[in-house]
Amino acid sequence: MGNNCVVFIVFMYTGRNREFIMREEGMVIEGRNVVIEAFRSGKTIDRLFILDGCWDGPVRTVLREARKTDCIINFVKKERLDQLSETGRHQGVIAYVAAYGYSTVEDMLKIASNKNEPPFLILLDNIEDPHNLGSIIRTANQAGAHGVIIPKRHAAGLTAVVAKASAGAINYTPVAKVTNIVKTIEELKKQGLWFVCGDMEGETMYGLNLTGPIGVVIGSEGNGVSRLVKEKCDFIASIPMFGDIGSLNASVAMGILSYEIVRQRLMQKK
Amino acid sequence: MGNNCVVFIVFMYTGRNREFIMREEGMVIEGRNVVIEAFRSGKTIDRLFILDGCWDGPVRTVLREARKTDCIINFVKKERLDQLSETGRHQGVIAYVAAYGYSTVEDMLKIASNKNEPPFLILLDNIEDPHNLGSIIRTANQAGAHGVIIPKRHAAGLTAVVAKASAGAINYTPVAKVTNIVKTIEELKKQGLWFVCGDMEGETMYGLNLTGPIGVVIGSEGNGVSRLVKEKCDFIASIPMFGDIGSLNASVAMGILSYEIVRQRLMQKK
Repeated sequence: MGNNCVVFIVFMYTGRNREFIMREEGMVIEGRNVVIEAFRSGKTIDRLFILDGCWDGPVRTVLREARKTDCIINFVKKERLDQLSETGRHQGVIAYVAAYGYSTVEDMLKIASNKNEPPFLILLDNIEDPHNLGSIIRTANQAGAHGVIIPKRHAAGLTAVVAKASAGAINYTPVAKVTNIVKTIEELKKQGLWFVCGDMEGETMYGLNLTGPIGVVIGSEGNGVSRLVKEKCDFIASIPMFGDIGSLNASVAMGILSYEIVRQRLMQKK
Repeated sequence: MGNNCVVFIVFMYTGRNREFIMREEGMVIEGRNVVIEAFRSGKTIDRLFILDGCWDGPVRTVLREARKTDCIINFVKKERLDQLSETGRHQGVIAYVAAYGYSTVEDMLKIASNKNEPPFLILLDNIEDPHNLGSIIRTANQAGAHGVIIPKRHAAGLTAVVAKASAGAINYTPVAKVTNIVKTIEELKKQGLWFVCGDMEGETMYGLNLTGPIGVVIGSEGNGVSRLVKEKCDFIASIPMFGDIGSLNASVAMGILSYEIVRQRLMQKK
């Protein structure tokens, strides 16, 4: 019904960072009612193309809904709409729905294999803060991790806040949503991955061999890694702490643990 | 005498994030002499409210004292002062005292000496984000650093947002404000400290010897460490990055670099 999933690329100029961020969008929707429904159902529409000079009732409704949001509105000629249309039945209205697409664990393993690198995945056990999630995606990208795996429930999704905190890394580092972290760990273990989780009661990370194919599990700041997940891990690694408070920020702890893996891998190559 | 320790809440609307940020302050002081005394006793006053159009002697004294500091001065109407006043006797002057006190560089060196540890200081070159400052104080605490040094101007102060992001570490890890970071580095060098700054153009940190008395300089995310500061550093350390984006979050980079120092110090002890 006028729904087409395509990948296209928009260059967005962000004045603040003074850089172009490449952004992939997930879906184009076409037709008056489909677009009105999309707005009303709360979907984020980044850009709207409307036939210039068309002012009938449904188009005015589309515009009214669009103006309640931050959507960019472009009035364009019929030729342009025909060009953008995937179905040929746009009825003067085409919208781009915002979506940072999720990837799959299989794709992450393929990326590692294509790069001829042992897999290096980050698994998040109930990280709820979108700033932390974004920062973790950013660090995962810089540390050379092949992807970030988050649970379907009780986790921050890929919102604009996450995208911003990731400093654009969300466009490069794949993020997969899984139903059950424990089951995902079990499946990945069959494919040769080892799992390490960060926990204060573990062995100091500097004493562990973290050079093989690895998944790093990071828990929430409040509760740490859950018991079931911890039981599945091969290593429990602790970051030495000399302070007076309970813990480190989750994204900082992830950075420190991930870079110990980076260090060990670099030393091994020498 | 017009002194009231209360906790009140200010809702600040930040158009940029479109969210309300809750801010807690530590103390309100009211009345001309009380505020003058507070300035003269060296208390850090974050914000001063003065009756608009009031220019008599004591008020001019308050202003003179305020202008010696980095205090934000607001000239407001009588109704606003009445609204802010807890005592009803503000005499045209209300001040907000900073929630957390600053320490000195000398005190940090004393702490290191008392613990019989080589000094380990964190210096921030224009970190303006209070969340980053708080997170850095938190990590400094856990990494066993003896203090965090920030410049007087163009830096986030010790607000409640910083305190919260520090997860309470602000109560344990001293923070000193200095007029000139370059001069502070020069003075600390005379006392035997070495300085390392994080910069993408530096040598990979794993190859540097960072075990001695050390100051770690972290720059802002946008501009990095300023040229003058970089020139004073003995080492320029880079964190290896394999990603597609420009940099790491400043507080994550600080954590990774600080924990490389922790690792080297631990290895040396063995």
